[in-house]
Amino acid sequence: MACINKTTGRIIYMDNAATTPLYDEALEAMMPYLKGGFANPAAIYDIGQEAAGAVAAARSDIASTLGARPNEIYFTSGGTEADNWAIKGVALGEYLSHGSHRRAAGTDRPHIITSAFEHHAVLNTCKWLEKNECRVSYVNPSADGIVPVSEIESHICKDTVLISVMLANNETGTIQSVREIGTLAHEHGILFHTDAVAAYGHIPVNVKESNIDLMSASAHKFNGPKGTGFLYVSEEIKLPPFMHGGAQEQGRRAGTVNVPGIVGMAAAAVSHHNDMEADIARLNELGSYFFERLSGLNASVLKGSEGLSDMKVSGEKEPGKDAVRINGCIDKRLPGSFNIMIPGVNAEELTVRLGMEGICVSAGAACATYQGDSSHVLKAMGLTKKEADSSIRISLSSANTMQEIDILFEFLRGIL
Amino acid sequence: MACINKTTGRIIYMDNAATTPLYDEALEAMMPYLKGGFANPAAIYDIGQEAAGAVAAARSDIASTLGARPNEIYFTSGGTEADNWAIKGVALGEYLSHGSHRRAAGTDRPHIITSAFEHHAVLNTCKWLEKNECRVSYVNPSADGIVPVSEIESHICKDTVLISVMLANNETGTIQSVREIGTLAHEHGILFHTDAVAAYGHIPVNVKESNIDLMSASAHKFNGPKGTGFLYVSEEIKLPPFMHGGAQEQGRRAGTVNVPGIVGMAAAAVSHHNDMEADIARLNELGSYFFERLSGLNASVLKGSEGLSDMKVSGEKEPGKDAVRINGCIDKRLPGSFNIMIPGVNAEELTVRLGMEGICVSAGAACATYQGDSSHVLKAMGLTKKEADSSIRISLSSANTMQEIDILFEFLRGIL
Repeated sequence: MACINKTTGRIIYMDNAATTPLYDEALEAMMPYLKGGFANPAAIYDIGQEAAGAVAAARSDIASTLGARPNEIYFTSGGTEADNWAIKGVALGEYLSHGSHRRAAGTDRPHIITSAFEHHAVLNTCKWLEKNECRVSYVNPSADGIVPVSEIESHICKDTVLISVMLANNETGTIQSVREIGTLAHEHGILFHTDAVAAYGHIPVNVKESNIDLMSASAHKFNGPKGTGFLYVSEEIKLPPFMHGGAQEQGRRAGTVNVPGIVGMAAAAVSHHNDMEADIARLNELGSYFFERLSGLNASVLKGSEGLSDMKVSGEKEPGKDAVRINGCIDKRLPGSFNIMIPGVNAEELTVRLGMEGICVSAGAACATYQGDSSHVLKAMGLTKKEADSSIRISLSSANTMQEIDILFEFLRGIL
Repeated sequence: MACINKTTGRIIYMDNAATTPLYDEALEAMMPYLKGGFANPAAIYDIGQEAAGAVAAARSDIASTLGARPNEIYFTSGGTEADNWAIKGVALGEYLSHGSHRRAAGTDRPHIITSAFEHHAVLNTCKWLEKNECRVSYVNPSADGIVPVSEIESHICKDTVLISVMLANNETGTIQSVREIGTLAHEHGILFHTDAVAAYGHIPVNVKESNIDLMSASAHKFNGPKGTGFLYVSEEIKLPPFMHGGAQEQGRRAGTVNVPGIVGMAAAAVSHHNDMEADIARLNELGSYFFERLSGLNASVLKGSEGLSDMKVSGEKEPGKDAVRINGCIDKRLPGSFNIMIPGVNAEELTVRLGMEGICVSAGAACATYQGDSSHVLKAMGLTKKEADSSIRISLSSANTMQEIDILFEFLRGIL
């Protein structure tokens, strides 16, 4: 039996950055293809072609949410595959398999610029590439959780083939300056990839306006099913395949097409796209209330701390030593996403205790849990190991309530 | 509206080698994780741990169906990923990322032996490796659709790091001599991979008894969901990751775990394992009836053709020129899987016409449909392009009936 919250009588789920519940409309879209309409979309008989039509409609629907053309959407098994494909494809494209892209002529040691607080799907791909004749520059974000564009620019050299910086960070929620980075990349004839796994579906994105050449997304981060995602690939790029085999996905991504997963993802994407304005307004309302409660917590519990000004940005000014702080800037962040540092608290223990109260939050990213390391994201932002280990991530959805925020803060007040 | 068969009032599905309907028990196993139980198994709160427990149980269930240990099962997005991972991992393991495997010391150009009629997930992976410092030998199968072990042996050299031969061919259904090939590989200190995508779930397999080091499987080929599969990796091998990122799957396969897909796959695997004896008996019964009807078709429609002896094995003896023949040997094949050559008929047109009668079969593999090429499988077996283009694949399941076989042959008699 799952731990439910005693006050609400159900689970208080505030870990939407880890994964999200499947939307009803996504499951409804999937069901015909889980029951009955199971045919392989590569088959030429009509039930196969019907499935192919559903996949084509999903592709078109997703393309329309990000200003892309349908032939620029390639379905993958998720964000990790999309990141691996984009980065390895560009870096090893000419080097290993003679694909064509805008690579500086004469490069025999491709150079990539990324940030030091990317998701491990990007970082570990880059680390693997470093063992394979590539060179990678890891740019640190500032204390506010934003990667400075000038720092990226300072690393550009004649061998640079790719800049990969995430759209929003998955631990802090801080939104990166992708349009500026994309413009910078294109000024230098460099490709720009953004890992939009944390952001897509939650904030507007237009790949053309932001000069994005490659963009990764994962369905389960926006209330679609697990095991599916997509990579946007600008039609100007001939990205070599990562998965070799059958001729699916315009010959670029082999493997039988996951029809139910794809139609479910598209339904969730469309739903988020249609509701985005209202969801953001709702999350901003919840976010303001969250700030208010956090400010109140500092004011009431901690001596010498007075309200919001004390917890503005870690590192920006010295807040009251014992104050609970928000990691990263306040203004540029995914609506409803917070990472807070609670001095003297062990975040993992706190997460377990909150879990027992039926409140789901996380200490760091879910994908890193297996490793037990301190957050590389927070350390890259300049937090000490102790501060990083005292930080929890709270990622709300529009389904959360002010009452749930009250319950969270009442619990936090109790332990402080 | 799908074309249904007028006689039965429903679709006659005889293309189970392309994909299979999701078993009810698989969907039932998935539903709790599509609704409600959506948490990330990497999360430490209880609903995350409950999902992790379901994945662990699935891993254990699957391992038990093939004589493996649970820690030898790695979940993937399907058979294509499993094939790419296994082959690239072994071939490029030391070469690119310094992994360790039983590679002959001093090799700087890894050599792979495979068959010329593997699935494209294996063949195109090998072709890519050929562009990347690897050497590949493609062994032709005999006319009976079996790859001669002696031919494989003749290609072994000091640089050989991997033999990859499928368990059963996906177009002809012919079952390969994997135990002999595995023994041969191990005698030479070479790793053995088998693509069991067409076979797993349909015939018994024990990886330890057959000296299999790596085995690929895909859920949707055995009535599990699309978008999931697994790679068995002997615990004696340290296969480097193919997908880099989070520490999921013992740090070897990154990406959020597809909980519903995995539990659905395990349910389907267990169901097939439990029912295998009965299913094989049923399919052999249907298969005998299929032979009988095919023999009757030859005897009644075609002059100079008398029964089974005329259609034994393509190439084995010269059957009546106009006789319908079975491609590949009769004895070593997946129960209920047939590939028949109908002289003078265009298989693609026939498939379309059968589709309009509500009968689903295929001309070649589904994955190759996009290309419009003649079957590389049948050509490797010595068929001419014309013969290959006159061949259709009929892959039955235990849910098919004798009446459905009658309907198929009545239609074929009508067109001959």
